[in-house]
Amino acid sequence: MHVTLVHVYVKPEHIEDFIRATQQNHEGAIHEPGNVRFDVLQSPDDATRFVLYEAYLTPGAAAAHKQMPHYLQWRERVAPWMAKPREGVNYHGLLPVLNPE
Amino acid sequence: MHVTLVHVYVKPEHIEDFIRATQQNHEGAIHEPGNVRFDVLQSPDDATRFVLYEAYLTPGAAAAHKQMPHYLQWRERVAPWMAKPREGVNYHGLLPVLNPE
Repeated sequence: MHVTLVHVYVKPEHIEDFIRATQQNHEGAIHEPGNVRFDVLQSPDDATRFVLYEAYLTPGAAAAHKQMPHYLQWRERVAPWMAKPREGVNYHGLLPVLNPE
Repeated sequence: MHVTLVHVYVKPEHIEDFIRATQQNHEGAIHEPGNVRFDVLQSPDDATRFVLYEAYLTPGAAAAHKQMPHYLQWRERVAPWMAKPREGVNYHGLLPVLNPE
């Protein structure tokens, strides 16, 4: 399982916009082949801080996400709402053990 | 959804021990009532760095995990293998939307 944790910093006046746009990206992503997780998390201490938890069966499936219309649309829509650049950190997902179909 | 990201720093000579012990904790955790995720991640850049991604339907179910025999056993077993204390960060899981049963 190929996992990316994306830390997102949103301008306070665009928190609701960001959640709405990200919900659309989430709905698209969970139907992609090879998607395992696309969880959207918000910090309880600072409502402007989000984490996207994205897991795919393979690095190829993760890369394909970035070609999808819902991703490209999301990226463009949220760009002006970012307080600073997003930070993505990759991990090997050891468990659960999932086999690429 | 109540999410905790736990950053774990393992002594290099105990990486395999840690993975084995954590697999047992994972197997127990995924059968707990209210558990949604218990993913075990390893950094591709530094094999001593792990993240546990733990999601529960409710804060109560997350708290109950820390009373479970598999958790208590894991905590005791891994204690001498830690390079430094674990760091847990809590999040509100906005998506997916899951209703407590």
